[in-house]
Order: sequence, then structure tokens, then C-alpha cells
Amino acid sequence: MTPPTLQPPSRSQLETFENRFPARDYLIEILCPEFTSMCPKTGQPDFGTLTLRYVPDGLCVELKSLKLYLQAFRNEGIFYENVTNRIFDDLVAVLSPRRMTLVAHFTPRGGISSRIVVSHPSGSDIPPSL
Amino acid sequence: MTPPTLQPPSRSQLETFENRFPARDYLIEILCPEFTSMCPKTGQPDFGTLTLRYVPDGLCVELKSLKLYLQAFRNEGIFYENVTNRIFDDLVAVLSPRRMTLVAHFTPRGGISSRIVVSHPSGSDIPPSL
Amino acid sequence: MTPPTLQPPSRSQLETFENRFPARDYLIEILCPEFTSMCPKTGQPDFGTLTLRYVPDGLCVELKSLKLYLQAFRNEGIFYENVTNRIFDDLVAVLSPRRMTLVAHFTPRGGISSRIVVSHPSGSDIPPSL
Amino acid sequence: MTPPTLQPPSRSQLETFENRFPARDYLIEILCPEFTSMCPKTGQPDFGTLTLRYVPDGLCVELKSLKLYLQAFRNEGIFYENVTNRIFDDLVAVLSPRRMTLVAHFTPRGGISSRIVVSHPSGSDIPPSL
Amino acid sequence: MTPPTLQPPSRSQLETFENRFPARDYLIEILCPEFTSMCPKTGQPDFGTLTLRYVPDGLCVELKSLKLYLQAFRNEGIFYENVTNRIFDDLVAVLSPRRMTLVAHFTPRGGISSRIVVSHPSGSDIPPSL
Amino acid sequence: MTPPTLQPPSRSQLETFENRFPARDYLIEILCPEFTSMCPKTGQPDFGTLTLRYVPDGLCVELKSLKLYLQAFRNEGIFYENVTNRIFDDLVAVLSPRRMTLVAHFTPRGGISSRIVVSHPSGSDIPPSL
Amino acid sequence: MTPPTLQPPSRSQLETFENRFPARDYLIEILCPEFTSMCPKTGQPDFGTLTLRYVPDGLCVELKSLKLYLQAFRNEGIFYENVTNRIFDDLVAVLSPRRMTLVAHFTPRGGISSRIVVSHPSGSDIPPSL
Amino acid sequence: MTPPTLQPPSRSQLETFENRFPARDYLIEILCPEFTSMCPKTGQPDFGTLTLRYVPDGLCVELKSLKLYLQAFRNEGIFYENVTNRIFDDLVAVLSPRRMTLVAHFTPRGGISSRIVVSHPSGSDIPPSL
Amino acid sequence: MTPPTLQPPSRSQLETFENRFPARDYLIEILCPEFTSMCPKTGQPDFGTLTLRYVPDGLCVELKSLKLYLQAFRNEGIFYENVTNRIFDDLVAVLSPRRMTLVAHFTPRGGISSRIVVSHPSGSDIPPSL
Amino acid sequence: MTPPTLQPPSRSQLETFENRFPARDYLIEILCPEFTSMCPKTGQPDFGTLTLRYVPDGLCVELKSLKLYLQAFRNEGIFYENVTNRIFDDLVAVLSPRRMTLVAHFTPRGGISSRIVVSHPSGSDIPPSL
Repeated sequence: MTPPTLQPPSRSQLETFENRFPARDYLIEILCPEFTSMCPKTGQPDFGTLTLRYVPDGLCVELKSLKLYLQAFRNEGIFYENVTNRIFDDLVAVLSPRRMTLVAHFTPRGGISSRIVVSHPSGSDIPPSL
Repeated sequence: MTPPTLQPPSRSQLETFENRFPARDYLIEILCPEFTSMCPKTGQPDFGTLTLRYVPDGLCVELKSLKLYLQAFRNEGIFYENVTNRIFDDLVAVLSPRRMTLVAHFTPRGGISSRIVVSHPSGSDIPPSL
Repeated sequence: MTPPTLQPPSRSQLETFENRFPARDYLIEILCPEFTSMCPKTGQPDFGTLTLRYVPDGLCVELKSLKLYLQAFRNEGIFYENVTNRIFDDLVAVLSPRRMTLVAHFTPRGGISSRIVVSHPSGSDIPPSL
Repeated sequence: MTPPTLQPPSRSQLETFENRFPARDYLIEILCPEFTSMCPKTGQPDFGTLTLRYVPDGLCVELKSLKLYLQAFRNEGIFYENVTNRIFDDLVAVLSPRRMTLVAHFTPRGGISSRIVVSHPSGSDIPPSL
Repeated sequence: MTPPTLQPPSRSQLETFENRFPARDYLIEILCPEFTSMCPKTGQPDFGTLTLRYVPDGLCVELKSLKLYLQAFRNEGIFYENVTNRIFDDLVAVLSPRRMTLVAHFTPRGGISSRIVVSHPSGSDIPPSL
Repeated sequence: MTPPTLQPPSRSQLETFENRFPARDYLIEILCPEFTSMCPKTGQPDFGTLTLRYVPDGLCVELKSLKLYLQAFRNEGIFYENVTNRIFDDLVAVLSPRRMTLVAHFTPRGGISSRIVVSHPSGSDIPPSL
Repeated sequence: MTPPTLQPPSRSQLETFENRFPARDYLIEILCPEFTSMCPKTGQPDFGTLTLRYVPDGLCVELKSLKLYLQAFRNEGIFYENVTNRIFDDLVAVLSPRRMTLVAHFTPRGGISSRIVVSHPSGSDIPPSL
Repeated sequence: MTPPTLQPPSRSQLETFENRFPARDYLIEILCPEFTSMCPKTGQPDFGTLTLRYVPDGLCVELKSLKLYLQAFRNEGIFYENVTNRIFDDLVAVLSPRRMTLVAHFTPRGGISSRIVVSHPSGSDIPPSL
Repeated sequence: MTPPTLQPPSRSQLETFENRFPARDYLIEILCPEFTSMCPKTGQPDFGTLTLRYVPDGLCVELKSLKLYLQAFRNEGIFYENVTNRIFDDLVAVLSPRRMTLVAHFTPRGGISSRIVVSHPSGSDIPPSL
Repeated sequence: MTPPTLQPPSRSQLETFENRFPARDYLIEILCPEFTSMCPKTGQPDFGTLTLRYVPDGLCVELKSLKLYLQAFRNEGIFYENVTNRIFDDLVAVLSPRRMTLVAHFTPRGGISSRIVVSHPSGSDIPPSL
């Protein structure tokens, strides 16, 4: 059996629903331990865990559309730093959150593993002590 | 044997007792790892862990009534964000606490798990670094 | 929103598919950490984790139908020992497996937690040292 | 407020219910992490975890009565080895199980912790390699 | 054998010794995982872990006397919130510490566990983010 | 950047090297926590961990070729039971091992996770107590 | 203050009490995580955890005397293999147990840690698969 | 064989080496999980883990001399609070660090374990929330 | 077979690539659990885990070149404090990061393990409470 | 400073001492988590943990000589399977043990980790169920 062909990831895949509690600042955290993309240099797959945390303003991201959007990176060749920043930019554009942080944790290659942390407003996620 | 029919959850189920130490700010934390409700979209059950932390003013919540109130969500169809905010609103209304935070952690669906954090006063639970 | 009404669990909910490797004895293990039913004595919900292990003969159980079958116990009033043996009997009847073990682990009540282990052929799962 | 006075533990506290699946050998395990009694030598409380595993014949032990029976040791002065063997004897007498093992794990005293394992038939729980 | 009869807990059981380093603010933490008392409503035993942290002024609490004082709650019927605040008040009265926090963590009842945190000066233990 | 197109998995991708210690029965275990394929029913990706254990006869599997062979399942639509048995058949055909076991552990879908265990000679991996 | 001078360890320090259940084979396990002795070659302290398991015949070892006996090795210069076998010989001589195993686990030195396992009858603790 | 006789601990045992990076504030942490001394009251050995953290100024402590200095407490009778403050005073005197914290964690006695935290400047290690 | 001879580590081995998101402060963390060098005093190998965290300005470090640079310390004789500061200086010189912290954690020698934390700007990594 | 040049590993580096308890079968286990060698194909370092278990006959291996022998593989280019069998052969030749098992666990490369298990007599370490 052949699974449906994957489309490249697009910001337009991300669906939203209305935040029914806009008078309140509250936190939504979403954990995606099954992220995978391809290394553009070696053609080998990369595997990672994404953790998204945000304080919604008018909109929340719909979970199933987020899952499909992230799955669309499956056959994309893209570096760690770039994929993290690109997903982050798409989510900020679609949700206009009050605050947002995206953490991407990639499994080891050659004995070395990596973690990228991006946030909005810029740098707000970086603690005084690294 | 048939278990008693479940009533829909109601704020009036929550009983309280007097805080005997009102001169002091202190913290009460209650952990409920057996929360379950229904997804209104798919009709499938959701499972989660609720963690309630509050600084009481004049009243404390009685634990058995809290348990029965939470059990009443068993057959309710309600989204993560909404059930968390609704329980939070009921507890704030009944207890008028000095401070309160409710954390709801839901098990994975489609490889994605979620956590919602709501607090009173609004946003007070959101740390400088997400 | 109202979720679909739950039907009582029925053996006929369990669907199967053909084992394509019947010449080989191999093991299938299925872990269901989200089982819940009702205590017929107290009307309180019970929560448990089911672990099913079997060596298929001609048939394998289809996972989605197993999930729906287990969800149907949600509002049933039934004791630990009985629910475990009943699910086990249904699975043996539908699959006629070469071997099967069902382990049910229930969360604590009054500081006491329980585990029930049933197997086919009878007693084959009970190790020489308990 | 004064809690009800504790009676000394008695075999007659243990209630049973009929095993509805006597044609099958299956295992029931009960975990009691909140056992406490008194050291007869020092008058200090002891704390332990009891794990009971048995294959029922005609009878199963009712969990609430077991809980109350074990709570009755709260103010008894009795040594580790003796309390474990006594509880074991009471359970064998009341249940006449096909097989039974009782494991008692006590917290450290003077930097030394202990575990006692008793089984029926005698010694059947002791593995070839200790 | 009969263990010595337990006296009700009394502040006078708490012995102290002189802090030999009063010129310095330093922290003493004491962990008591074997606390038990009785529920005044149900007559059932409660089990918890106490964690005491304080900055001594002129006096430190002697550990053996603290152990005996805590053991004296064994047969007392008292609620979580009250027992935590009472022990805290006794320790503040006897030690006059510069700062003190008492955390009481109780095991689950009906699937719900609790933690109480009391501190001196009032509320100083409650972090900006609950 | 576009990563190289993935070819479907083929037994011919598996390279071997000579076992230099054929006089001795010894065990080689290989752990692959980054296996992914597609569900043929839903078109959604599956994620799992493969553990291969074998006693070599004349040949050992070369690790890099094994990695590339497993990566080739990335876009294949195939069920858990079938993919496990297919990989197993390929490895037995190429290596003719004295003994072999393949364990495939898949992450949860709908709250249910699975593990498949296949071995050569048939059933040799299934312990007396499941 | 000077603590009492330590005497060298002697078999005569080990006290026993009568096994009140000699008709039954049962297991007693004692865990001593605070064992220390001296390396005779380097004069540096060694640290280890001893685990004693035995099936008593007529006698059980008294725990406090065991603690004092083990503490007496504090300033003895003795190799891992020898101290383990010596303690084992003393316990077998004093208790004449039906079966006994002593496991000694020593912390790393130069990046290497050790474990010694001795049993009675000789070799009975060594499993078929090391 | 007799190990070399232990001298009482002395500040003069602590050797130092020059900090080659004095222009920079950086942190050195040293973990000593094998600390042991004697209780002056009971004559029983105490066991603990020391964690030293400091920001060096002109000098760093040499690790082998620190090890020998700490080993010299082996047969000293001294209370928890006093041994922690004494080691701390010796290290501050020898190193004149910019900042320093010493944490001593002792294993349970009578079910109670302790932790002492001392720092320079005084109290700088004590967080706003205990 | 002879592996290629290792060259001594040199700052010039570190390759960089352009940070494509310079308008944003974000964090890159790299974990290297396989660091090894030689002790210049004893000639014995040291083993450690390096954790690098930095906020890039115009440049990011290329991971493969970082791996090779770190491997070049394999046969260098160098003390903990010095190797940590030297690697840190090389990385700051090559990357001119906005902020950077390097943590080096070394395995136990003689029962003592060490951790060195260096940061840019100087001391910025040292938390208020050590 | 230059550390001493490493000699290639040689069986003659392994020193032994007399087993003082030859009448008894007992087990010695030695854990070496800091093994490193070079991959002959890529020139990259490999890292692993060795676990040696043996029942001595007339001789035991001296730990310091074992450490130096294993360190001598540091710059050797050798495959996983070969290095494990070579070390095993050397130890069997020098010790003539009654039984021996060597387990070598190597860290992941390309997302795949390996474990090799060799034993004497041949195959004795391979359990009935892999």
C-alpha cells in the first residue's frame, strides 16, 4: 500500500480556533516527541523533540493541523537552526501570541546532541544564568 | 451491577471548610492524576493529571467534594483549554483564594501531548523564562 | 457538546485480521495505560493499565477495535478480578491464540494497589518463583 | 477529635469472596506500601511495604477487610520476621490458596534495611539463584 | 510484647542545642519520610513526608527529640492543614529561627494526594510562579 | 536543499562481513531507536525502536548498511506485524544466523502502544512465562 | 569528643536469635549500604554496599550485632575478594543457614567498580547465564 | 595488613594551585560522595555526600589534598552542623574565594536524613523561596 | 589497522557558518558526552561531558568541526580547569557570541568528581544561589 | 605537559594474584565504563562500557593492571566485535577461569548502538530466551 504523498510544509496548514479566555494570560504547552526531517548535507534523517509554549492572545493553534504541519517536514532537507526558526516564525505569524518559546532537541550524531531555543519577544526565554 | 448515574459537573458540588490560619500565607497543593473527560470532536476519552496550587484566604476546598466534582467531567465533551479554564473559574469563585494556579497535563494523542497552566491573578504563574 | 453514548462492551466489537506468518511462533504485546471502569460497590471510577501478550495462531486483534472495546467499560460497574477475566475470555474466544497473558494493574485505593494476571493455557504465566 | 481505638489484629477480620474463575490458575497481587508496626525492643515505629501474591482456589481476600486487618498492627510490638510469618499464616488459613508469597520490605534502621519473603508451598518462592 | 504507650505530642518534647555559628546565615534541612497520623473524619491512618528547612538563629533542633515529637502524632486525629500548621507553630516557638519552611506531602486517598507548605516569615516560601 | 530520493527497502542493501570467531557462540545486539515507517491505513507516520540480537554463524551484518536499509522504510506504508516479520526474514536470509531475535517497540497511538517479538528458531524467544 | 575505639571485627560479635518458623523455607534479605574498609595497598578507604540473603535453619542473625560487626571493618586493611569471603565465612559458621548469598558492591576506583558474589552451597548463586 | 594511621584533619593539609584565569568569574564544583565521620554521642559512623562550589580568586584547591583532608575526618567524633561549618571555614581560610557554598547531605538515622548548606558571603546561598 | 595520527587541538579547526537569524536572540545548546583528555600529572586518561550554550551573533559553530576539534584533546595532558577555560577561549574568539557558557563535568577520580562552569560575559552564568 | 606514550595493549600487561578461596565457586564482576578505542574505518574514537564477570579458578586479575591494559586500546584501530573477542581471549588465557563472560556496550553512531557478549565455555552466556 502507498501512503498519501507528503506536501512540503506550509504556514497555511496551521489552523486556529478562538481563545475563549482572552482576558487572562495563561500558558499552553505542546510536546511533539516525534519530529523528523532530513539533513541537507548528508541526506540522513534527523530526529527531534519539539516543545512549544505560548501565551495566546486571540487565537490558539488546532492540534491536529499542527501535527500535519510538522509531519510535512518529514522529507525536507533543512538544518537544525533553520528548521527551528522557520517553525517558530510560522507559528508567530499565524497566532500573534503574547509570548512564545519553541525548544527543539535533536538526537545525537557523532556523539553530539543539540538543542535550539527560540522565543518571542526576542531573547525573552534566555534565563539570566544560561 | 449499575453504578450511580453521573450528574454533570456543577460549581455547587464544591464544599469548603474554614481556613484556621488566615493570618498566614501558605500553600496547598492537590494532585489529581486520574482526571478523564471526552473529546467533543472525536467522542474519544481524554486522560490527564490536574495539579492545583493555591494560597487560601478564608476558605479551603474539601478534598472529597473536589474528587466528586472532578469525576463529574467523566462523560462531558469538552476541549482541553476550556475544561482547564472552567474548573479554574469554579474554584476561584468558590474559594476566593489569595493566589491560585491550575495545571492540566493531558496524555498524548497522535504523538502530541499538552499542558495548560492557568493562574490567578492572571498570568502570575508564567515565569520570566517560559 | 455531547459525546456519542457509550454502548456496553461486547465481544462482537473485537475485529481481527489474518496472521500472515502462521508458520512462526511470535509474540505481540499491547499496552493500554488508559483503562477505566466503575467500582460496583462504591460507584467510584477505577483506573488501570492493561498489558496483553499473545502468540497468534490464525488471527491478530485489530488495534482500533480493541481500543473501542476497552473504552466501552468506561461506565460499567465491575470488580477487578471479574473485568480482567472477562476481557481475557473475550480475547481468547475471538483470537484462539496459541498462548495469551493479560495483566491488569489498578491504581491505589485506600493505600492499596492491585495487579491481576490471567493466562492461557491456564496458569502458564505464573512463574516458578512468584 | 479522637480516632476510633484500634483493636489488635485478628484473623477473623479478613473477609473473603468467592473466586468466580476456579477452573483457571491466575495470579492476584496486592501492594500495601503503608504498613507500620512497633519494634518490641525499642518502642520505635517500623515502616514497611507488603507485597502479597497468590493463586486463589475457592476464595479471594476482600481488599477493604485486608486494609483494616493490616492497620490493626499499627500499635503492635512485633519483630520483622514474626509479623511477616504471622500475616502469612493468617492469609493461608483464611484463603487456602493454591500458591501464595508474601514479601515484607522494611525501611532502614541504623543504615540497614530488611526484606522477608515467605511462601506456600514452603520455599516455593526462593529462586534457584538467590 | 507491648510497646511503651504514646503520649500526645507536646511542644515541650522538642529539645534544642546552641547554634555555634550564629554570625552566619546557613540552612538546615531535615527530611522525615515516615510521618503518620490519623484522619479525624474516617479514623483511617494518613501517611506523609515532612521536609523542614530553616536558618537557625541562636538554637538548632535536636534530631532525636524531633523524631520522638513527630512519632507522638501517630494516634492523633488531625487534618492535613492543621497538623502541618501545628508542627510549624511549635518549631517556630521553640527555635525562633531567622527563616523556616515546612513542607508536608501526604500519600493519595481516593486518587488524590496533597502537599502543604508553610513558612516564616509568612508567605516567604511561596515563589513568584506557583 | 533536496535530500537524495529514498529507494524502497531491499534485502540487497544489507552488507555483511566475515565472522572471525566462528568457533564461538557469542551474541551481538544492535539497538535502533530511530525507526520510522508509514501506516498504510491512515497515511500517518509510525515511530519505533528496533532491537536486534543474534548469534552469528559465518557472517555479521555491517552496521552502516543496516542503517541505510532501515531508513529505506521511511516512506513505506506497512503494518507493525508485517514490517517486523519482513525485516526479520531479510536478516535471516542474509546472515543465516545460529539464533536471532528481533523486537520492535512502537510508540502509542490512541493511548495504545505495541511490541512485536520474532525469533529464529521459531518461538525460541518466547519465555515460559509471558 | 572522641568516639569509642573500634575493636577488630570478630565472629563472636555476631549474635543470633531462634528462628520461630523452622518448618518453612523462607528468605531474609539485609541491605547494608554503608560498608567501609581500608585498601591495604594504598591506605585509602573503600566504600561498598553489602546485600545478604539467606534461608535460615535454626538461627537468624540479630540486626544490631550485624551492624556493629560490619562497622568493625572500618579501619581494617583488606582486599575486596578477601573481605567478602571472610564475612561470608563468619555468617555461615554462626548461622548454619540452609542457603546463603553475600553480594558486595564497591564504588569506582580509577574508573572501575567491582562486585563480588559468594554463596552457600558453593556456586549456587551463579545463574546459568552470567 | 594495617593501613597507615590517620592523623586528625588539619587546615594545613589543604594544598592550592594558582588560578590561571583570575580575570574571569567562573565556578568550580567538587562532589565527594564518600564522606564519613563518627557521631560523638553514639559512637556510630555517619555517612554523607559533600558538594563544594566556589568562584576562585587567586587560588584553587588541589583535589588530592582535599581528598586526604576529608578522609582525616574518618575517626573524628563531630556533629553534622559542626563538621560542615568547620570544613567550610578551613576552605574559606585557605582559598579566600570570591564566593563559596558547601552542602553536606547525611544518610538517614532513625528515618530522618539531614542536609546542611553554608555559604560565603554569609547567607548568599539561601534562595528567596526555601 | 592504524587510525590517522591526531594533531594537537587548534582554534583554526573550528569552522563556522552564518547565523541567518541575527535579529533574534536565541539559544544553541550542544552536548558532548564523549570528551577525553590526559591528566598531565599521572598520565591517566580523564573523561568528561561538555555542555556548550551560546546566543549567536553573526556566526554559529559547525558541529562536525567542533567534534574534530574536541577529539584533538584525546592525547593532550591538561588539567580540568585549564582545558575548560582553553576551549572556552577558543570558542569565544571564533564566534564572538552575544553570550556563552561552557560546563565541563568530569567522572570521579579517588571518589571525587568535578564540574567547571565558565561564561561570557564573565560570571554571568553564576546564579545568585550557588 | 606530555603524558607518557601509550604502548599497544599486550596480554603480558595483565597481572594476577592467587585466589585464596579456590574450594568455592564465586563470582567477580568488574565494570569499566570508560573504555575507548578508534574505529579503523573512519579514524573516529569509539566509546564503550565493558562488564567482565568470571568465576575464578586459581587466579584473579589485579585491577590496576587490568585498567592499564584496557587504557592501552586508546589509540588502537579495531572493530567492536574484534576488540571484544580479543580482550576476552587475553583474559581467558591469563586467568583460566572456571567461567567467564565479557559484555561490551558501545555508544550510538548514526543513531545505532551495539552490545557484544562473549562467554566461556562458548555460548554459556546466551540465555534460552534472547
